[in-house]
Amino acid sequence: MNTIGIGLLGAGTVGGTLIHRLVEEHAAIAAKTGLDLQVRRVAVRDPGKQRAFSIHNGVITTDALGVIDSPDVDLVVEVMGGRDPAGDLVLRALQAGKPVVTANKELIAARGSELIAAAEQSGVALLFEAAVGGGIPIIRPLSETLAGERITRVMGIVNGTTNFILTRMSEEGTAYAEALQQAQDLGFAEPDPTADVTGADAAAKAAILASLAFGTWVGLDHVPHAGITEVTAADIRYAADLGYIIKLLAIAEDTEAGVSARVHPVLLPSDHPLAAIRGATNAIFIEGPAIDELLFAGPGAGGDPTATAVLGDVIDAAREILAGAQVAPRIRFAPSELADFGTVPTKWYVRLEVADRPGVLAQIAAAFGEADVSIKSVWQEGSDDEATLLIVTHRAPESRQRDALGRVRDLDCVNAVAAAIRVESDEA
Amino acid sequence: MNTIGIGLLGAGTVGGTLIHRLVEEHAAIAAKTGLDLQVRRVAVRDPGKQRAFSIHNGVITTDALGVIDSPDVDLVVEVMGGRDPAGDLVLRALQAGKPVVTANKELIAARGSELIAAAEQSGVALLFEAAVGGGIPIIRPLSETLAGERITRVMGIVNGTTNFILTRMSEEGTAYAEALQQAQDLGFAEPDPTADVTGADAAAKAAILASLAFGTWVGLDHVPHAGITEVTAADIRYAADLGYIIKLLAIAEDTEAGVSARVHPVLLPSDHPLAAIRGATNAIFIEGPAIDELLFAGPGAGGDPTATAVLGDVIDAAREILAGAQVAPRIRFAPSELADFGTVPTKWYVRLEVADRPGVLAQIAAAFGEADVSIKSVWQEGSDDEATLLIVTHRAPESRQRDALGRVRDLDCVNAVAAAIRVESDEA
Repeated sequence: MNTIGIGLLGAGTVGGTLIHRLVEEHAAIAAKTGLDLQVRRVAVRDPGKQRAFSIHNGVITTDALGVIDSPDVDLVVEVMGGRDPAGDLVLRALQAGKPVVTANKELIAARGSELIAAAEQSGVALLFEAAVGGGIPIIRPLSETLAGERITRVMGIVNGTTNFILTRMSEEGTAYAEALQQAQDLGFAEPDPTADVTGADAAAKAAILASLAFGTWVGLDHVPHAGITEVTAADIRYAADLGYIIKLLAIAEDTEAGVSARVHPVLLPSDHPLAAIRGATNAIFIEGPAIDELLFAGPGAGGDPTATAVLGDVIDAAREILAGAQVAPRIRFAPSELADFGTVPTKWYVRLEVADRPGVLAQIAAAFGEADVSIKSVWQEGSDDEATLLIVTHRAPESRQRDALGRVRDLDCVNAVAAAIRVESDEA
Repeated sequence: MNTIGIGLLGAGTVGGTLIHRLVEEHAAIAAKTGLDLQVRRVAVRDPGKQRAFSIHNGVITTDALGVIDSPDVDLVVEVMGGRDPAGDLVLRALQAGKPVVTANKELIAARGSELIAAAEQSGVALLFEAAVGGGIPIIRPLSETLAGERITRVMGIVNGTTNFILTRMSEEGTAYAEALQQAQDLGFAEPDPTADVTGADAAAKAAILASLAFGTWVGLDHVPHAGITEVTAADIRYAADLGYIIKLLAIAEDTEAGVSARVHPVLLPSDHPLAAIRGATNAIFIEGPAIDELLFAGPGAGGDPTATAVLGDVIDAAREILAGAQVAPRIRFAPSELADFGTVPTKWYVRLEVADRPGVLAQIAAAFGEADVSIKSVWQEGSDDEATLLIVTHRAPESRQRDALGRVRDLDCVNAVAAAIRVESDEA
């Protein structure tokens, strides 16, 4: 039998589910893969805590270093999360020549380049399928199956909490605060939802997706991000009237400006495949000249789907150990010019509260024109002596769009720039 | 530089596109993967034929065996299609210790078990990502990323021609023959569309999907299949009235009856994720207890997407050659009881032309009851003294459903069983 000893760092939701399945489904996994996967050491913070799995005495420990260094641990699974101390532990395992499987998007986005280099140097695998899209197979397709495709763009709904909130706001007219509360009540949102609603969680995933899609490392500090806290029910309604739905997207692109990644709310055409992704479901949409359009959709979080992704990586790493292979690098990062966000072409939806008098539209149009941004469509709704103007621009570099917004904001006839949200559509 | 010599068997649409890209994108592939992929030998039937790619003199040959045996060929790509002589050529390459990449669904469905065993014995890779779903990464996710999931069901729209035809029939009310003609005019359908419209093409893919999903080899002769030639515009309309869309699905299941695979038209609830897959697009829907539901969608055919899938496999196989790894088997097939189709639970939509007189429904209901099939819903539309009855049954073993149909057909009051199509929905 091909026995592989597994050491876990962490035994929370994902780790606990993984241990449970490694124990309960041991025979089924062995039949399917030929592998005898043994949980040998599990490092936890609180060994006295009640766990949802049962395991032999002596397996649970508080000594994470001991798990890594243990001679009967062939493979390390890091599911403790966070940058520290996970990063140094993963590095130590790789340097000790032990393959590592991790679900830690934050760590990979922050230190992926360094960790992948360490794995390469030791000739062992560093696998992180679970870091993006939970149970959706996306890392392997992107980095292996599509290795021969010149991917042009990846757009993803990679945060289930915010997609759940936006779905409730769109479909039920629920206000943001109430939709967030519902997400928390249903367990989709953390008690502290900051990382989700500010786009920080999605930004880590965007960095990873961009790095894999374009083969050049995109650091987390190169991913500008904005969240959904300022998306209003009013803009969701206006967007719907114009044929769009508002989604929080992670966008990784390779344009003339260079490689870029960003996260922000987006007006997406209602007939776009990502527009149909509802609730906490995640989805990743990939474009390239040969494959045209690919869509991957499924559960983006949760112990069970994430554990399936981790388990797939564990099986893969175990096979490589048994093959005795000094594996070739899976991912190779070539240096590449990262685009300055100001040069990336974007389109905008802008909602203005303006004085309702003759000549106002001409002034606003002139302001856009001075910034060299052309207007695609204008829709006006009047009420007494104030009017609401909805403007959608054509594509222009982000910096020019911001210049236009500044000029418009400065106009006397403009009472407020009530909303400004980017638009993603194939039109110019 | 890590140079890998490639020998191709075949240079048609997929092979020609692949050669073109290996030549044109050589530098980009090298930058991304670190591989110097060289096309060294290409076996074709007609060396005088004009090709869409240009290649050094002496590379093109009619000697397929020579390509395989050539010492400067490290890796064989089989894109000639068909069972013979492709099968024996692939076998010879594997036995000679050369990894093989193939896009040949027919060959894998027919001889996959034997070829995979040969690959395993030689310790080389046999990769066939392009065999199912064209450019959609599905083989690798199914056999690797989801190796730790107990998949319960895979349903796929795996034939673009038939999905195109059914989409036209559904959306435009086009008749079958005319929609087929349109598919041929647009190049989606072959001049001889038999393999597509009879479900034979989809059956080969169903066999492969079932084998990978359940880790037990499902031979092509264990895949009952029916095509779309008898789907009528009338049934598409009736189905729509009842909340369904008609799709040709490949279905691979692991039920109490055992593992099964089949291909036939299906009434699918209009809100099912596969219902939204239009035109020639392919999609695969995977269900399992931990991952819940996954959807993969994209271009299912065509030289460009298929070449991307082949290229991904080539890069993977090349990395393994360079790693010098006797790779562990990627797929392990355990013996398993294949279900007799008669025992597989199915549901049916049945359209009956009946005499419009009292007592008819009671007789029909009794016939279903005698076969131990219970009726979920009945919808009646009268016209003069004949009526149309639409019946949807509850789930029952296929053999009982057929028994019921036979009993109904034998009733004097039933003028015709105008249609009988299986229903796939989560309800009982």
